[in-house]
Amino acid sequence: MPTLRLALCQVDPTVGDITGNAGMVRAWARRAADAGAQLALFPELMLTGYPVEDLVFRRSFVAASREALHRLAADLAADGLGDLPVLVGYLDADGPPQVSADAEPGKGARNAAALLHGGAVVATYFKHHLPNYGVFDEDRYFVSGDALTVVRIGGVDVALTICEDLWQAGGPFAVARQAGVGLVLNINGSPYELNKDDIRLPLVRRRAAEAGATIAYVNMVGGQDELVYDGDSMIVDANGTLLARAPQFVEHLLVHDVELPPAKEPVGGNEVADDMRIVRAKVSDILPPSPGDGVAVGGIIEPVADEAEVWQALVLGLRDYVDKNRFPSVVLGLSGGIDSAVSAALAVDALGPDRVVGVSLPSQHSSEHSRVDAEELAKRTGLHFRIEPIQPMVDTFLANMSLSGVTVENLQARVRGVILMALSNQEGHLVLTTGNKSELAVGYSTLYGDSVGGYNPVKDVWKTLIWRLAKWRNADAERRGETPPIPESSIGKPPSAELSPGQLDSDSLPEYDVLDPILIGYVDGDLGREGLVASGHDPAIVDRVLRMVDTAEYKRRQSAPGTKISMKAFGRDRRLPITNRWREDG
Amino acid sequence: MPTLRLALCQVDPTVGDITGNAGMVRAWARRAADAGAQLALFPELMLTGYPVEDLVFRRSFVAASREALHRLAADLAADGLGDLPVLVGYLDADGPPQVSADAEPGKGARNAAALLHGGAVVATYFKHHLPNYGVFDEDRYFVSGDALTVVRIGGVDVALTICEDLWQAGGPFAVARQAGVGLVLNINGSPYELNKDDIRLPLVRRRAAEAGATIAYVNMVGGQDELVYDGDSMIVDANGTLLARAPQFVEHLLVHDVELPPAKEPVGGNEVADDMRIVRAKVSDILPPSPGDGVAVGGIIEPVADEAEVWQALVLGLRDYVDKNRFPSVVLGLSGGIDSAVSAALAVDALGPDRVVGVSLPSQHSSEHSRVDAEELAKRTGLHFRIEPIQPMVDTFLANMSLSGVTVENLQARVRGVILMALSNQEGHLVLTTGNKSELAVGYSTLYGDSVGGYNPVKDVWKTLIWRLAKWRNADAERRGETPPIPESSIGKPPSAELSPGQLDSDSLPEYDVLDPILIGYVDGDLGREGLVASGHDPAIVDRVLRMVDTAEYKRRQSAPGTKISMKAFGRDRRLPITNRWREDG
Repeated sequence: MPTLRLALCQVDPTVGDITGNAGMVRAWARRAADAGAQLALFPELMLTGYPVEDLVFRRSFVAASREALHRLAADLAADGLGDLPVLVGYLDADGPPQVSADAEPGKGARNAAALLHGGAVVATYFKHHLPNYGVFDEDRYFVSGDALTVVRIGGVDVALTICEDLWQAGGPFAVARQAGVGLVLNINGSPYELNKDDIRLPLVRRRAAEAGATIAYVNMVGGQDELVYDGDSMIVDANGTLLARAPQFVEHLLVHDVELPPAKEPVGGNEVADDMRIVRAKVSDILPPSPGDGVAVGGIIEPVADEAEVWQALVLGLRDYVDKNRFPSVVLGLSGGIDSAVSAALAVDALGPDRVVGVSLPSQHSSEHSRVDAEELAKRTGLHFRIEPIQPMVDTFLANMSLSGVTVENLQARVRGVILMALSNQEGHLVLTTGNKSELAVGYSTLYGDSVGGYNPVKDVWKTLIWRLAKWRNADAERRGETPPIPESSIGKPPSAELSPGQLDSDSLPEYDVLDPILIGYVDGDLGREGLVASGHDPAIVDRVLRMVDTAEYKRRQSAPGTKISMKAFGRDRRLPITNRWREDG
Repeated sequence: MPTLRLALCQVDPTVGDITGNAGMVRAWARRAADAGAQLALFPELMLTGYPVEDLVFRRSFVAASREALHRLAADLAADGLGDLPVLVGYLDADGPPQVSADAEPGKGARNAAALLHGGAVVATYFKHHLPNYGVFDEDRYFVSGDALTVVRIGGVDVALTICEDLWQAGGPFAVARQAGVGLVLNINGSPYELNKDDIRLPLVRRRAAEAGATIAYVNMVGGQDELVYDGDSMIVDANGTLLARAPQFVEHLLVHDVELPPAKEPVGGNEVADDMRIVRAKVSDILPPSPGDGVAVGGIIEPVADEAEVWQALVLGLRDYVDKNRFPSVVLGLSGGIDSAVSAALAVDALGPDRVVGVSLPSQHSSEHSRVDAEELAKRTGLHFRIEPIQPMVDTFLANMSLSGVTVENLQARVRGVILMALSNQEGHLVLTTGNKSELAVGYSTLYGDSVGGYNPVKDVWKTLIWRLAKWRNADAERRGETPPIPESSIGKPPSAELSPGQLDSDSLPEYDVLDPILIGYVDGDLGREGLVASGHDPAIVDRVLRMVDTAEYKRRQSAPGTKISMKAFGRDRRLPITNRWREDG
């Protein structure tokens, strides 16, 4: 049996940075070649980044992607890497993209992959199964491919597939079996979701059985607006054995030798299976010898605990958002409460303490422990700390206008927002807002107040998970002999907005251990009132919570992006009309 | 030839208000019957409103739609309207909606229509062509129907179709010809776009020829978040003759007698044409006599001038947003400039002067003419006017923080935002923000400052069109012998943000008559740099403008909804990644 040394390049491209992304391919192809790889693969839409959304409709953008692909093939050869077959995702098109009812059937943009070898593009493949649910809108943007590309590399027949091709039954993997391939390459831009790594391995095993072939699954890593790609690249053989698995949330070169069956079918002919054409190409019948020594073993990384996984996802999402948008630093308000403490700890883990500014913004309602806890957090993490009292500004508004009740509460939050934005304007920091997902769901925040900010590290984190994360992060620090970043009293005290005397969250909301399960059922699970009541929740509390969620849509529309970690984050995959009279409770 | 008296019910339902929408059907069916109608038709998704977006995924919502449909059939009969066939759009489903890769093929939610007669549902139809571009995401939500429903009514064969079925060639209208129908009903939720009425009539004519049948096209009217439906319902015969046409932007009962060929085909059998099954049902071979006298003639409304059309669209979109969300009134800042003046005039036209509060928010940089022009606008329109000077609050911020330059400019805008939100909290007004589309495109605004507000009447209106609208509205008032609402000096003076001494928009932006054509090409037309330069624009200005647009994405994400009038409004149909390194100028 031929042995092929695969290099799965789990890298972090940036949407739109075609030049930078192509440079990344050259650098990592060099590393792969140095490790003796005989085939290197890069993620879905590597050259453009993913998702490109409406950039697809820009002809100049599609043209730039195609030009970059051909230039990359030439550059790899000029780099002395022409012998290494490199599979790379890119954006292609035949005809204008579909933007109206007048679209020509079968014409449009393609989510494409190209195999580069000898300075040229030797084969291309167009994604067949297009996902159009959750964060995906690919039916809007792409036309489905109707051919499976099979390339002979070192005497092994290798099929090319892209992401969703793996998630749906039938299509490319079934056709790969009929084409008699030994290896299927699957390149991905597969975003992280809590526990998604538990789904992927069984799925890859199922498709390996369906294709009767080894699968090399490479995924993107890194943050892109609300999405974070977790990597988790892997190789699974035809029997379902996991051969190698990369760590999540870091760039990684996974190099592993796989034994593969020699090709049996002739190249050429007009094969069709399951309504897909089979298109064959050839790179080589015999492999060039691998310059690497011995046997390459990629190793198998075991998944980590939920809290560790979420923490890493949030850190990476935040770091890439700040760095890819070229912000030097971040600023956030520190109330002494748990949300801002966890957000600050995430920011320090993502960027280092020197790039994080924490601001205590006390009012006359701020408790002594709030100021102390904020200062303690700053001391433990080493972030830059300062104090900006809000009372003089609040008093001036109150002296010049006739305001009372909730208006005065919101006013305090808005003065804080103005101060943070002034610091952002003056010093160049990105403002972090720190409202958790439970708050966002029920609208328990001040629009243009505590919701002010360019990015929200905990936007998709339920309040009860915030507490779990805080405890995990502190325990993890202790395990390593480091200082736990989050003051224990920030974790233990009852949540309060501190906008009026003695105020507690529980004055306005059910306790979070009651609230969160209802929200999870309603938002993540699309359960209705009856389904929630049948799950054992108190009908009166269900009605109260659902009404709050239904009427908070407008605030969520005006909220900052933040890393998505669940099935349904507010934003692209939780879209509801603002004007909407539907109420579960009638 | 049989004559059928049709009633096209051009009405304004609200998303989610299933009970209210069903009540609207009963009231308008009564009006139709009183006018002697023998067949009444209502818009697409009449019972749920359109678009329902992720409400589709709520099983309880789908169940409520189905229950309401059957209850409506019974209620109509109880109302004495059981003899009148009524076609109504509703949401149906077989199996769970598609929300993941695991969806069962062909199962899911349906964009449906039902013909109600004699207290029962006598026929249903599932939309075949699903639009998935622009504001439409129907591939996400619905499964396509594969059967054409033909109902015999008064001896005439009538095909049922929905909206997009009309916009794409092939499918239902081609099958309708093969089914030998005399009439095709097409029910719509077709949003307004500038000049869309010029496209609809030729399109209906083309499909009438394709089907060889008369078409009755009924459209929704009214605002739903960013969409505004314009009505424009019409009847066109098989020769392409326009028989009747309803006015735009108002509810309207269009009653018209049409002569139709008698049915030729037998009812029953297993017919298939163009991969669609033909399903036949029967209401009656002979019509009950119409109680109406003489011949009903619906009349043909001629389209109005562009400016009048846009003005009506913006007024209706604003009024329905405010009323459907149950706000008692609106408040907006009046700077004396053209954007706030046009917005105020729109608000007064939409809601009446008693529901509009205008606030002058002068600073030390506000010119005398700004205050005078704001006051003059208030006097002309009769809106409630008040003055809230911002300088004391600005001065307190400046005394307590070290701020300079643009930060101080933004601070003034943010203090204004805090004041408007305080008035909103205290008195219950919805805040209107008034940034035009040109400003939004290039990011020439202060986040959490002048962008504060729940709705933006001019969000999708380029600056040059704002001026045209102002001049048209004033001239129209003069034509009617009324006071022109907008002070001439607000129209004539050079635009300025008045945040620093002597500041003009032209210090930071190209003149608007240079800027707008570039923006229109880039945003509405998806032209790239080269395409814009080839159109004759100065390359240096193009580069400057494109860079501004590309970096303003974040501000646009945090902006208020507003009526969409163009091909690409920012929001649902102009979606770009925030982290995006693609720049047209490299």
